[in-house]
Amino acid sequence: MSSLASKFAALSTDNAPGQEVRQSHEDIRSLMIGEVLPGRRVDFSHGDVDAFAPPPDAMERFEEAVRIGGRQAYTEYRGSADIRAELAAKLEAFTGAPVSKDAGIIVTPGTQGALFLAVAATVAAGDKVAIVQPDYFANRKLVRFFGGEIVPIAMDYLGSAEGAGLDLTQLEAAFEAGAKTFVFSNPNNPTGAVYSPREIERIAALAKRHGATIVADQLYSRLQYDGESYTHIRANGLPEGQCLTIMGPSKTESLSGYRLGVAFGAPEIIDRMEKLQAIVSLRAAGYNQAVLRSWFDEPAGWMEQRVAEHQTIRDDLLAIFSAAGFPTRRPQAGSYVFPTLPRLTVAPLDFVRLLRHQADVIVTPGTEFGPHERSIRLNFSQDRIAALDAARRIVEMVERYRA
Amino acid sequence: MSSLASKFAALSTDNAPGQEVRQSHEDIRSLMIGEVLPGRRVDFSHGDVDAFAPPPDAMERFEEAVRIGGRQAYTEYRGSADIRAELAAKLEAFTGAPVSKDAGIIVTPGTQGALFLAVAATVAAGDKVAIVQPDYFANRKLVRFFGGEIVPIAMDYLGSAEGAGLDLTQLEAAFEAGAKTFVFSNPNNPTGAVYSPREIERIAALAKRHGATIVADQLYSRLQYDGESYTHIRANGLPEGQCLTIMGPSKTESLSGYRLGVAFGAPEIIDRMEKLQAIVSLRAAGYNQAVLRSWFDEPAGWMEQRVAEHQTIRDDLLAIFSAAGFPTRRPQAGSYVFPTLPRLTVAPLDFVRLLRHQADVIVTPGTEFGPHERSIRLNFSQDRIAALDAARRIVEMVERYRA
Repeated sequence: MSSLASKFAALSTDNAPGQEVRQSHEDIRSLMIGEVLPGRRVDFSHGDVDAFAPPPDAMERFEEAVRIGGRQAYTEYRGSADIRAELAAKLEAFTGAPVSKDAGIIVTPGTQGALFLAVAATVAAGDKVAIVQPDYFANRKLVRFFGGEIVPIAMDYLGSAEGAGLDLTQLEAAFEAGAKTFVFSNPNNPTGAVYSPREIERIAALAKRHGATIVADQLYSRLQYDGESYTHIRANGLPEGQCLTIMGPSKTESLSGYRLGVAFGAPEIIDRMEKLQAIVSLRAAGYNQAVLRSWFDEPAGWMEQRVAEHQTIRDDLLAIFSAAGFPTRRPQAGSYVFPTLPRLTVAPLDFVRLLRHQADVIVTPGTEFGPHERSIRLNFSQDRIAALDAARRIVEMVERYRA
Repeated sequence: MSSLASKFAALSTDNAPGQEVRQSHEDIRSLMIGEVLPGRRVDFSHGDVDAFAPPPDAMERFEEAVRIGGRQAYTEYRGSADIRAELAAKLEAFTGAPVSKDAGIIVTPGTQGALFLAVAATVAAGDKVAIVQPDYFANRKLVRFFGGEIVPIAMDYLGSAEGAGLDLTQLEAAFEAGAKTFVFSNPNNPTGAVYSPREIERIAALAKRHGATIVADQLYSRLQYDGESYTHIRANGLPEGQCLTIMGPSKTESLSGYRLGVAFGAPEIIDRMEKLQAIVSLRAAGYNQAVLRSWFDEPAGWMEQRVAEHQTIRDDLLAIFSAAGFPTRRPQAGSYVFPTLPRLTVAPLDFVRLLRHQADVIVTPGTEFGPHERSIRLNFSQDRIAALDAARRIVEMVERYRA
């Protein structure tokens, strides 16, 4: 295989969330046990922005930007200066550490855009990069795309007594072996685990000692459940140049359709990201950037209600999976849950396809997140009744195909 | 310098269009001859979407998409299937060759997004890529970013009796020397030159003979002036797998603020582009995609009027530059003009900065497009009166600084 062909073979999106409609399913009927399970389709591969509406002024912000016209259509590549200034103040308050509006922030097309630029700006061919297992699927693909070498770090998300369960000994060994970058999501995607203050302090201390760069994907850090606390690694003693944080208004705020992300922190990394953004997509869509004005500016009580509604769905889903005996981490934040299924008579990827074709339930296979072939990921930002009914169909399907 | 540092040094955006506000100008006053030239600021680095409004239904299409909600927010990575189907039919009619709605088209965040993905999908480290001089600045940066080697192809855009003036002998030599990709814009950015039917036929024949891939950036191909004809290379006998065409609703339609692009043709390249888009930005912003419904669907007479208005500005600008003795190619399509200035007493990049600070006129230096340091690029999709006045200020500034 040519170098390009193998590079792109490693980027397979066949089982990626949202791509299910492009799969062929001619052979799946031969595997089916029993009849179709009726019920309303639920697509757990992402949140349902119809079930949870965006903040009331998002569309007004957009329309205002279209009226402003050129100045908002053509912003600097790193995003419009006035919007960056507003964001810097909001993110400084949220994370508890300074954000420079000029040097320390860039607006990107979605947090995916920020992650791509961040990895490109920090990982050269041959570089070792520490990556958690399980973690967001694109992390590993990005490292491979830029020729980096993945050093997997285990996370005992089911068994840990405290925190996310990261194997800090493995992380230290990775840094000692020369890993210069650690990319991780907190809350963890797919499990919803949140790193404890002690874990975050330890990660920061290890990175500082070894001069490693931390890329912290905090996309879901606003959706924190009752009794949970959250520690921002950027406020934990790391030199400014060694920490880049990624956030964005997305599923939590139901603003995914506008594709907005923000990276903030290390000025040198952000300079590189802007240079690369100039040839990747120029800038986040100009008018869309204005929607960021409604972020962290929701009406009083709006976020609290959103969190409470998600918490109810989380608890109901956990009750269903617990009754079925699926080991499942209780998500502390975010809207993902990652149950482990029992052994089945069909291959895990075939079961995911059967779920879709027999039960009209779309989930993302665990193998997208690491070597977790018996797990499935669900985004539970959904209509509650439909989601619970779909979860029961998953349990029923597991019973049919149980080994 | 580390490999990453040199990779990003090559991506400098200091003089890129739209980035002028980030330049420091403390030293420029010491170079100034004479006083400030008064006049309304004109930013020729891009088109003015306030002077030329978008089609009347663009915003309605967007609002409709927000109302549709989730289905439009989360599309497949290559873009929503129904919008791709509409686009395939429109682009087939416009270019005169089939477009497969399923296998042959991808929606991207701007044409810049399409160009990035296309070069990533076709150029591996060490590959030779034929690039026209002058041509769009990102082409060269993209090839370098992916480790490719640029084989420059000269274009005698001022002297050619017919067509754009591409040196076909150099192109043939490049293919013979192993170049496997030819990336070019038609109409050419920055000169507005359009390739003749004979040039396009010859490029296609050479690419076919050598098995080379053509990436044709046709962003401005709808804005054709009176008496000009346009030849689509994809309809000129190339095997489907060897030709990728890039277009998008942008300056011509004043839709740049929505950041939409489309690549169509070679299915294998589009498959790779989609895989990469999944980790670069996931997809073009979902709601924005719906604005593509208004593209090629403008009210009767809308495009004709837009072309006529641009043609008037073009002719008036050419008259001013001609009277001043600046050799200038007459643009046959698009809204860029690329005059050559006389020798000056200041360095070309300093003159561009002086233009901004002394005359409030923003232009893009010719060096962004190749070794054309005495040229400047202007996008003349502007308010006509303001643009002509600014052009006269450029002439006056040239007189002041003439060597």
